[in-house]
Amino acid sequence: MKKDRLLIVGSVAFDSVETPAGKTEMAMGGSASFASIGASYWCQPLVVGVVGEDFGEKQFDRFADHGVDTRGIEIASGKTFHWRGRYHDDFKGRDTLETALNVFESFDPEIPREYADANYVFLGNIDPTLQTKVLDQTSAKVVAMDTMNYWIDTAMDALKNVIERVDLLFINDEEALQLSGEASVLGAANSILAMGPRYVVIKRGEYGALLFGPDMRLFVPAVLLEKVVDPTGAGDAFAGGFMGSLASKGVLDRSSLSSALINGTVIASFAVEAFSVDGICDLGQSEIKARTEQLENMICH
Amino acid sequence: MKKDRLLIVGSVAFDSVETPAGKTEMAMGGSASFASIGASYWCQPLVVGVVGEDFGEKQFDRFADHGVDTRGIEIASGKTFHWRGRYHDDFKGRDTLETALNVFESFDPEIPREYADANYVFLGNIDPTLQTKVLDQTSAKVVAMDTMNYWIDTAMDALKNVIERVDLLFINDEEALQLSGEASVLGAANSILAMGPRYVVIKRGEYGALLFGPDMRLFVPAVLLEKVVDPTGAGDAFAGGFMGSLASKGVLDRSSLSSALINGTVIASFAVEAFSVDGICDLGQSEIKARTEQLENMICH
Repeated sequence: MKKDRLLIVGSVAFDSVETPAGKTEMAMGGSASFASIGASYWCQPLVVGVVGEDFGEKQFDRFADHGVDTRGIEIASGKTFHWRGRYHDDFKGRDTLETALNVFESFDPEIPREYADANYVFLGNIDPTLQTKVLDQTSAKVVAMDTMNYWIDTAMDALKNVIERVDLLFINDEEALQLSGEASVLGAANSILAMGPRYVVIKRGEYGALLFGPDMRLFVPAVLLEKVVDPTGAGDAFAGGFMGSLASKGVLDRSSLSSALINGTVIASFAVEAFSVDGICDLGQSEIKARTEQLENMICH
Repeated sequence: MKKDRLLIVGSVAFDSVETPAGKTEMAMGGSASFASIGASYWCQPLVVGVVGEDFGEKQFDRFADHGVDTRGIEIASGKTFHWRGRYHDDFKGRDTLETALNVFESFDPEIPREYADANYVFLGNIDPTLQTKVLDQTSAKVVAMDTMNYWIDTAMDALKNVIERVDLLFINDEEALQLSGEASVLGAANSILAMGPRYVVIKRGEYGALLFGPDMRLFVPAVLLEKVVDPTGAGDAFAGGFMGSLASKGVLDRSSLSSALINGTVIASFAVEAFSVDGICDLGQSEIKARTEQLENMICH
């Protein structure tokens, strides 16, 4: 079966992360990396991004191993985007210690001709002005986006312009309250839907995720884990798994969205069990299936 | 149909509460009040507790209106237990401003002969030594208990003795971590099950509730609400609805426990929408059914 194609635009980066479980230096990261590898278990991911000359064969091999099409990743002269952060003892918060945009600073996403027929698009968490540029270049059937508090703080107008045009917004609970000015998740969801998108998915970390849409509310709990190693990228892996799953179904209905929530949740649970993309690389179908069943069995019905 | 009987032992109190939504003075409260009225929609609650002479007809009428048997409530000379507290702006925490135990200080629960054949028992959050006294007087089929951080801090040995003897423990997530010394909810659940009970229900407030048992994990999300007025008693209403629902089924299996989680969650959602027991009084079956369907529709499957 020819896999459906999901275009992912976002950052490809090196992360240096310290958590209560350990640390890693200059490991492969970025929203497009987590989302594309996460999506690869359900669809054919196509990535648009930029890296520096220090992004090596080892990293490109990881994409290749998962069938990720990287023809849209530009190799610019300079260094790859680097983020350094440290999580608090309880994993509830983190501090950014260093953000070196490097080649990402002049990132100007261009969709290669070969990607033009992708029906599903995921706009990772980047400057909303760039997200809009991508939107202008695509006639995809379903476009989803992610964002973060930084853009709410600094680029609210541009952010609202792009939110208005997408089909689905991924956002975490705190940011949903901040974006909407509402006090409850339910109020925030309704307010965000009024901004334009048909669906909003509110991510709540270890508490699961909620989807709101026309006459539809869906909830999935997170997979219960004894040990978390590194939450970095879990939201991107979730969005990748969600969108990959959705692309593989070809329709947007209660059943496909419900599966997408479950698959996104499962892949995110693997993501947090290791540093970098290690947790979501080279997963067997049986591993994914076992965890999916574990999750489905947990749901009251 | 003759309703099944659920014996509830706990506090009957007056609460004075201030929340971001307003305040109330000397309103009916206590774990046995919330649990029994919550349970009354599914079973016949029998209450053992103690009140002072200031606990009036108006309060007893509220029990009577819900078919709660109060023959086990002793009226002692003195004043009723009074708790005064204030919730923080985000509802995430609260401060106790005053605790006047009054007649509750010498509470010594005795099960009336008329209650002896109750097959289901809920031990509200009271001194574990008193919970043990109740256990010694009953041969019920299913005994559940609640507890709180105060008893973990001050009476761990007595608490572990009673936990060992019950079928089911209700506990919130923070307290589960504290009781077990574990860092994850999953670790805490496994550790608590090793202490003796067949089941543990971990309450997570607005994030829902989890049940762990032999080869069984069940999760139910909370009902999404635009506005919370007062969380006081929500956990007791939850336990009451849960146990009432379970008593009405007569068996402990995946299906009855799943329904119990859903019914407990629904009744707790009504509890937080008003001060005191107001939110869970005089509910119509259609109101309960509508909210149950809303919750069930939200669950991915």
